[in-house]
Amino acid sequence: MLLPEGVAIDGATGTVTPSTGRYEKRLSDLRGFFHDDAALDRAIATDGDRVAYEVIDYRHEDSDLSFGTTIMMPGTVGGEYIITRGHFHLRKECGEAYYTQSGEGLLLLESRDGEVKTVEMKPGVCAFIPPEWAHRSINTGKDKLVFVWFCATDAGHDYGIIKDRGMRKLVVERNGKPTLVDNPNHA
Amino acid sequence: MLLPEGVAIDGATGTVTPSTGRYEKRLSDLRGFFHDDAALDRAIATDGDRVAYEVIDYRHEDSDLSFGTTIMMPGTVGGEYIITRGHFHLRKECGEAYYTQSGEGLLLLESRDGEVKTVEMKPGVCAFIPPEWAHRSINTGKDKLVFVWFCATDAGHDYGIIKDRGMRKLVVERNGKPTLVDNPNHA
Repeated sequence: MLLPEGVAIDGATGTVTPSTGRYEKRLSDLRGFFHDDAALDRAIATDGDRVAYEVIDYRHEDSDLSFGTTIMMPGTVGGEYIITRGHFHLRKECGEAYYTQSGEGLLLLESRDGEVKTVEMKPGVCAFIPPEWAHRSINTGKDKLVFVWFCATDAGHDYGIIKDRGMRKLVVERNGKPTLVDNPNHA
Repeated sequence: MLLPEGVAIDGATGTVTPSTGRYEKRLSDLRGFFHDDAALDRAIATDGDRVAYEVIDYRHEDSDLSFGTTIMMPGTVGGEYIITRGHFHLRKECGEAYYTQSGEGLLLLESRDGEVKTVEMKPGVCAFIPPEWAHRSINTGKDKLVFVWFCATDAGHDYGIIKDRGMRKLVVERNGKPTLVDNPNHA
């Protein structure tokens, strides 16, 4: 039987104690997600294949609800701010909540029929992600962006659609400010 | 179709903006949950039938995941700290997460077969409540206790078992400190 437990979450660093798993994505892991492959190659050649974001989870298969943190590094690639891959949930009834702890960003969402929405990510804002909206987090700030996510344990991730077609919009730095523009690669 | 939304949560006051519902429980609503009815009568006679706690939710029937805040006032009744009613979920596979934002408290949990656990509630700690553990929050501090909860929308609440039998343990103030003692009324 699962036991109750206090899980310490550091809102500045994103550490989760205790945690059950973690992974990180480096710039090269995001090839095909950024809009400009040549700029990605140059970024890796210049700065090295640095970590773009890290995900730490607290997850038990015997509980319906899981949570964890995502820690996103600042920076741009070809003018595009650092992004997560973005996904739909495999189980169509599953939403999610992203509760920002530190930093600033944009949550970019796209429905199955191509409607686009953004939600500002900043401390104290819990972004509600309804079922059937693909979602990608974007660090538009100068510091780490740290948020806590809460999601059904069996929601599942479909990264393929976003990888294959791209999202309709990008968030790029224009005059130092995050700006939503059309994705030239959207299929 | 549900739309994404940024929900502002004030960790000091517990306000949720926008919210979809709210309720409050006053001392008299907790008759039968505190261990000492006579002390409850005296507290109401002395201080009035004050609010013990308030719950504000952000909930959509078309999303599997809901969240909200619980705002608990400080104080004691017959030496027992202010409590929530405590509940099992109706759907046995449903757990919950309580992420404390301000104040200090104890989460008191009891399994179906009578095992008792506590989890410290303090800012930065997200309490994991596994399925099939009844849970009651207790404000053991001098200020408000505010936490954000995340739960399946259809988890359901069974308050009856706790009301009828009581929990096995109480948290009372002894020498100014929260102390776990046997509940003399436990059936």
